[in-house]
Amino acid sequence: MHAELLTIGSELTSGVTVNSNAAYLARRLAEVGIVCSRQVAVGDERAVLREAIREALGRCGLLVMTGGLGPTFDDVTLETLAEATGRPLIYHPEIAAGIRRFYTRLGRRLQRAAMRQAYVPRGATPLPNPIGTAPGVWLPLADAIVVALPGVPGEMRAIVERFVLPRLKRLGGGAAVETRTLRTAGVAELSIQAILARLRIPDAIQVGLYPHLRMVDVRLTATAPTRRQAQTALRPLETRLRRALGSAVYGSDEDTLEEIVGRLLVARRLTVGVAESCTGGQVCDRLTNVPGSSRYVRGGVVAYHNDVKRRSLGVPVETLERFGAVSAQTAARMAEGVRRLTGASVGLAITGIAGPAGGTSRKPVGLVCLGLSDGRRTRTLQRRFFGDRRSIKTQAAQTALNWLRLFLLKKNTRGNR
Amino acid sequence: MHAELLTIGSELTSGVTVNSNAAYLARRLAEVGIVCSRQVAVGDERAVLREAIREALGRCGLLVMTGGLGPTFDDVTLETLAEATGRPLIYHPEIAAGIRRFYTRLGRRLQRAAMRQAYVPRGATPLPNPIGTAPGVWLPLADAIVVALPGVPGEMRAIVERFVLPRLKRLGGGAAVETRTLRTAGVAELSIQAILARLRIPDAIQVGLYPHLRMVDVRLTATAPTRRQAQTALRPLETRLRRALGSAVYGSDEDTLEEIVGRLLVARRLTVGVAESCTGGQVCDRLTNVPGSSRYVRGGVVAYHNDVKRRSLGVPVETLERFGAVSAQTAARMAEGVRRLTGASVGLAITGIAGPAGGTSRKPVGLVCLGLSDGRRTRTLQRRFFGDRRSIKTQAAQTALNWLRLFLLKKNTRGNR
Repeated sequence: MHAELLTIGSELTSGVTVNSNAAYLARRLAEVGIVCSRQVAVGDERAVLREAIREALGRCGLLVMTGGLGPTFDDVTLETLAEATGRPLIYHPEIAAGIRRFYTRLGRRLQRAAMRQAYVPRGATPLPNPIGTAPGVWLPLADAIVVALPGVPGEMRAIVERFVLPRLKRLGGGAAVETRTLRTAGVAELSIQAILARLRIPDAIQVGLYPHLRMVDVRLTATAPTRRQAQTALRPLETRLRRALGSAVYGSDEDTLEEIVGRLLVARRLTVGVAESCTGGQVCDRLTNVPGSSRYVRGGVVAYHNDVKRRSLGVPVETLERFGAVSAQTAARMAEGVRRLTGASVGLAITGIAGPAGGTSRKPVGLVCLGLSDGRRTRTLQRRFFGDRRSIKTQAAQTALNWLRLFLLKKNTRGNR
Repeated sequence: MHAELLTIGSELTSGVTVNSNAAYLARRLAEVGIVCSRQVAVGDERAVLREAIREALGRCGLLVMTGGLGPTFDDVTLETLAEATGRPLIYHPEIAAGIRRFYTRLGRRLQRAAMRQAYVPRGATPLPNPIGTAPGVWLPLADAIVVALPGVPGEMRAIVERFVLPRLKRLGGGAAVETRTLRTAGVAELSIQAILARLRIPDAIQVGLYPHLRMVDVRLTATAPTRRQAQTALRPLETRLRRALGSAVYGSDEDTLEEIVGRLLVARRLTVGVAESCTGGQVCDRLTNVPGSSRYVRGGVVAYHNDVKRRSLGVPVETLERFGAVSAQTAARMAEGVRRLTGASVGLAITGIAGPAGGTSRKPVGLVCLGLSDGRRTRTLQRRFFGDRRSIKTQAAQTALNWLRLFLLKKNTRGNR
């Protein structure tokens, strides 16, 4: 089945917002065997939108629209879709009830305008929005399906995952596509490319490399007449690739590094405390994004000012004065201090120069020192990163989490001996 | 002048690459008064591309294309543009000479395929590429201009800045567009709409509302024959809107809440320390994303486990036992404790239930208590948020930062009295 995307909003056509919804949708559709042949972005002018809908419906079997479903005057998607397809808007009491519940739960007074969202084109099925008030819409026409989704990325994604992808999978039609993403940390893209060059990649499998900061995702996509055949084609390559990449693979598909670290901590019955300077709390923030993380995250200290490093983590003044706040020695004392303070089994520490100011020729911007203490031994690690302040923070956080993961992996091996 | 963008490449339609070129071009065109009414992304199939070019030329006065200008088999833009406009491709010796120089400079052997790039449609002016080998193309037609640019963002931008924008400015003709985004926190989208309904919006100004978690951006766009006229049209509405929204407006255009909080702290010569439970370090992470934040962020504590709340922040056991970890009382003690521990002038604390587990009927998931202490007085605030764990964390962090901002704003008024 060929699909087109129609993303709506003047924030897109004016360039204020980068259109990340389109990329997300194209990727997810590909995973259920639907090829997206065209993406169109238009503003919220009705005439332009109506024309764009009609053009797209003249070409494709699936039209996915995002944006313009909200309660305000510039939300014109459903009215225009109704016009373009010659169907009146029909009031749905169950959507209205959902909107009322949403407002009651928030303890807010229901705004009359919110009820605009209870009208959808005749023949359409509302797709419940688990996060906001604007439902999505599934509208089957004679020779195409139209799906309209909210433009807020979190809401759009929630509806796609829960309602749109399962329906599209059931509809079938396309060839079966099976994908597997191996998520790696700490290995450069070109090294992975060299490994791939040595493995023989079957014709039926496409390989894509998607580098992020200090991480590379390797995505394998197999296309075959049936899902089982696609899986059979994928499996041997995945096995060989996992073997070649070793512990650089931290997880697969939707796994995050912080989830994997959390699972390892739970499996080893360990807890963690984090002392952060340059990362400013990002490591703790990521660790605590995982549901259930209160079982193994004891807490942390953001030791930005040296006084805090001294007072709350007990880093000796002499260490700070002799080696500096960004040094292996300070990182080691921070790791030991936060372990003691939080009562965790493992203390992890990050100190560095995120920039743009504060660098010297001996200690340049991007220099980061890490410390890890398990009560028996304290390890340190030093790295140099490049990029702007936020990029350096993220690379440091990423490296710290991956270092903790590798430590926990070894912990296992040793325990088994 | 109305423009359309046509971005070409299967990495866009497959979603592997987010289309940041389109956003960049739309913004830059708006600055010279050209409104971009539609963005289309297609793959590198000739038939689809030819149709897309013809459609766009039937509608707009300026068509800007990116991608598909390189030397490889899947670079079909100029051939297809030549077909769609009925003009043959002509060899340009000066482009060929430039390509030869490029290869010599890099010390590489000239690839024959590279010479494909020396052919451009008859009537077109090549636009030199200061970074790569593929030149851009400026093609004036009877009733439209076509600009074709490489898809590599750096090359595309270099050609746009040096050659395309100056030419478009000289052509004039287009109206000037001036935009202003007012960024608000703590006010619902529908309340802002109600305020907008009371203000009279001039016809020449478009208003768009862009909600995020606990924030709404209000964007005003004025179109007028000259930039000065557009500014003049915008200013009175901006003033009235700022007055109506009051302190809900935390900044404009590219400002972030954490930057504004930072500026207020610097202006008042104050420092901050943050005690975070449910937000897990996110408030500190955001505050320290701002360059120079080490001047006013003393540090913080992520007090996940109650032991850490007690030991490092000095929250009394009785408070934790009697009122619970998520209570105004605990939030107050946390704020006071972190202020003391970090030696900051202001202590900010966040404790809550991010979920999905841990809620009770009296203290449901999403309940968040905030504390703020300036050494003279300790304030508390309680809120209930909805959504998943990450959304609740973000709403809590957002609310805490905005509350700190409002506190700092008042601090000023009092000082002036």
